[in-house]
Amino acid sequence: MTKQIRINAFTQCSICPQSKGQWKNPADHSSAGYRDLDYWIDLAKTLERGCVDALFFADVHGVYDVFGGSMNAGIQHAVQFPGNDPTTLATVLARETQHLGLIFTLSTTYYPPFHAAKLFSSLDHFTGGRVGWNIVTSYLESAYKNGLGSQPLEHDERYDQADEYLDVAYKLWEHSWEEDAVSRDVHADVHTDPTKVHRINHKGQYYSVQGPHMCEPSPQRTPFLVQAGQSGRGTEFGAKHAEALFCGFRDIQEAKEKTRTIRDLCEANGRPRDAIKVLPGVCIVCAPTEQEAQEKYREYLSYSSPEGALALFGGWTGIDLAGLEPESVLDNMESQGMQFLAQWFNSDDPNNRATLMDVMEYMSIGSLAKVVVGTPAQIADYLEAMVDEADVDGFNVIPVAQPASALELVDLVIPELQRRGRFKTHYEGNTLRENFSHTSHPRLDPTHHAFTLSLESP
Amino acid sequence: MTKQIRINAFTQCSICPQSKGQWKNPADHSSAGYRDLDYWIDLAKTLERGCVDALFFADVHGVYDVFGGSMNAGIQHAVQFPGNDPTTLATVLARETQHLGLIFTLSTTYYPPFHAAKLFSSLDHFTGGRVGWNIVTSYLESAYKNGLGSQPLEHDERYDQADEYLDVAYKLWEHSWEEDAVSRDVHADVHTDPTKVHRINHKGQYYSVQGPHMCEPSPQRTPFLVQAGQSGRGTEFGAKHAEALFCGFRDIQEAKEKTRTIRDLCEANGRPRDAIKVLPGVCIVCAPTEQEAQEKYREYLSYSSPEGALALFGGWTGIDLAGLEPESVLDNMESQGMQFLAQWFNSDDPNNRATLMDVMEYMSIGSLAKVVVGTPAQIADYLEAMVDEADVDGFNVIPVAQPASALELVDLVIPELQRRGRFKTHYEGNTLRENFSHTSHPRLDPTHHAFTLSLESP
Repeated sequence: MTKQIRINAFTQCSICPQSKGQWKNPADHSSAGYRDLDYWIDLAKTLERGCVDALFFADVHGVYDVFGGSMNAGIQHAVQFPGNDPTTLATVLARETQHLGLIFTLSTTYYPPFHAAKLFSSLDHFTGGRVGWNIVTSYLESAYKNGLGSQPLEHDERYDQADEYLDVAYKLWEHSWEEDAVSRDVHADVHTDPTKVHRINHKGQYYSVQGPHMCEPSPQRTPFLVQAGQSGRGTEFGAKHAEALFCGFRDIQEAKEKTRTIRDLCEANGRPRDAIKVLPGVCIVCAPTEQEAQEKYREYLSYSSPEGALALFGGWTGIDLAGLEPESVLDNMESQGMQFLAQWFNSDDPNNRATLMDVMEYMSIGSLAKVVVGTPAQIADYLEAMVDEADVDGFNVIPVAQPASALELVDLVIPELQRRGRFKTHYEGNTLRENFSHTSHPRLDPTHHAFTLSLESP
Repeated sequence: MTKQIRINAFTQCSICPQSKGQWKNPADHSSAGYRDLDYWIDLAKTLERGCVDALFFADVHGVYDVFGGSMNAGIQHAVQFPGNDPTTLATVLARETQHLGLIFTLSTTYYPPFHAAKLFSSLDHFTGGRVGWNIVTSYLESAYKNGLGSQPLEHDERYDQADEYLDVAYKLWEHSWEEDAVSRDVHADVHTDPTKVHRINHKGQYYSVQGPHMCEPSPQRTPFLVQAGQSGRGTEFGAKHAEALFCGFRDIQEAKEKTRTIRDLCEANGRPRDAIKVLPGVCIVCAPTEQEAQEKYREYLSYSSPEGALALFGGWTGIDLAGLEPESVLDNMESQGMQFLAQWFNSDDPNNRATLMDVMEYMSIGSLAKVVVGTPAQIADYLEAMVDEADVDGFNVIPVAQPASALELVDLVIPELQRRGRFKTHYEGNTLRENFSHTSHPRLDPTHHAFTLSLESP
């Protein structure tokens, strides 16, 4: 049986987040729209019309200020700045749609776990179980300088801290309240049975949280868990916690190898090999004919802001490329926590080393996601090949212009996938977890690490 | 000219927050409803039908565990527990109403100022300028034990810290972005003019925040500022920052004296005497006839949970009244930060000292807000007298049962006030600040402390 493809739509509560300069494109409405409920509601309804699994919101907490040693380029070119808090959109989008999942990025570095647990439980209640959490550990020096989190930790220690953070959250979500604690027994004058609500009394290396959790069990209890780490330690973290992994692969061969590694790690964690849905980022430029698609790609490129692209690159990598010539070859790009980016550009093949021009183009459209340009059939061929040959489960689709990219996806690409029997024509479950993992149970799989914990765990 | 009365409706994203036990009353739908968007949307629409100024959300971050040395009573009687995060409701309520203000409580103890500023700017954008912030400094030991905030500070130091917190927020909201920074100049390839977005470089005793603010200027820039402190230091804090003050008075005489003090302090801060709208809490039980109103009050009392009331009292005061007889007289109720509550019960008149029974009744219905029971005319007489004799500006109306109390307010009390020319029949402004302060300008008044700051302030 052919594997069904999952599709998330990537976005950020900001301006053309991964494709710098598109705010100048009349097909992009994000510059005024990101502050406006109508814009978001229209986007969510479009995606739901296409049975897209979830709208995925990234988020950042500081300005990009590495390029040229200043924040000027980041501000001038609207590099994920300004931006609003995306979690505030959850209830209105849940109200205006019936099925679309809503995934929000929240950093373990910046929010106390007790708050994060309350926030996600609240959202899970109000969305009827349609919420997901993209777990990130943060790296921006500029966010730390905004009074968020403690002194930035070394990359691997960040993940140690995040492991403990997740344990606190699981204890609150899965262990603090028994399922039937709320009895609403008018006769006995018992709203909630106190013997069924527990303190968690967590005392660890990084966190000390007494509990109980403020929220009664929500439809999914634990939100659907997504993660985006790429490094060795990040993948290890994902294999333990995540139900979906958002990642970047240069080609099918790399995707195949890394997906196998992820499934191996997943199995080593006592989970089914397919417990994690692997979702590479892909940036789609689609039109009815190949010529139109290529023209559209060139038009997108004509709006791009190379300086904005380099500001984004600087923020991600900590590497300032200001002052280089377009033909300069890039060396020494290894940077803490950003090995993936360095790898992307530093091919082992010495004839294939990246120039500044390459970086600018890669970062201008889709920002490191694989860009595929073509007809619906060509796009579908690529997506099917990735799923069939590399064994990935679907895609996080990065927009170029918004809502134009969402309309291309829903009106051109998805109908083709549906014709091929690779994409659903209606939502089957009620919760994000049911829809995404094709299970009939809204809760975390019993093999998940969360259930190895007890309230006596350190 | 008769002064127009302002009315906010108090609530909490929890179960009959100030009237313990009403979840058993069929007229109260909060137990199932607080998790449900329909319940909140219906409530907001009801309030907007009555031209109520704003829905005011309180919030807490820990269980009440002082009474009897355990959390049992707080859990059994649903004492503001469980509860969801109310700020998540802002966008859906903004979407489903056109004018109603939305005020959210956020503690300066638990959220970094950079996050709070981003959250409120986001909400102000998405609500079109209808958001208010009820500023609290937190006191719950149980919240601290949940890993929120640092070791609890002494009461007065909490306000020193909050003063600096507000300064950081004002710098982000009012000084970081120039009004016309976003130019969206396609031709010049300038989305935002970098010379008009500033770091705040705040380095103070408690906070170090570099900025710039993540959000471009929203309709109100600074959310409408509400405060609920009652102590000397709390009132001083309010006189400096607040645009509305939520408070409790035992009688008209006390209201008159305290309101004069507030207006004096306000003037001493260089602000107009009426810059702060003074809003005592009031709990209304209204019916077409006096007899029906008294019957309704007795019915409400029949559902009350005295133990739940004592659990709430214990949480607020830190005083455990478990084991006392109903007739026991209460002494030594002074407790850090809760002088107001102690005062409420320890009248200077030695013949008028409170018993446990008094505390239970006061805390069962309205929880320390003045309870007024009567016909629409009787209620309106009381509200008018408070406004005319004590010079208060309006009321924060505490519900008993929800939505029953909101319906009484909107269908009985407000029409009577409107007949008397004391309450508006439509909303006049677009933003909460315009509607509440009866100004035509959505921004903080130029006399406000926020404008004495500059980006060079320490």
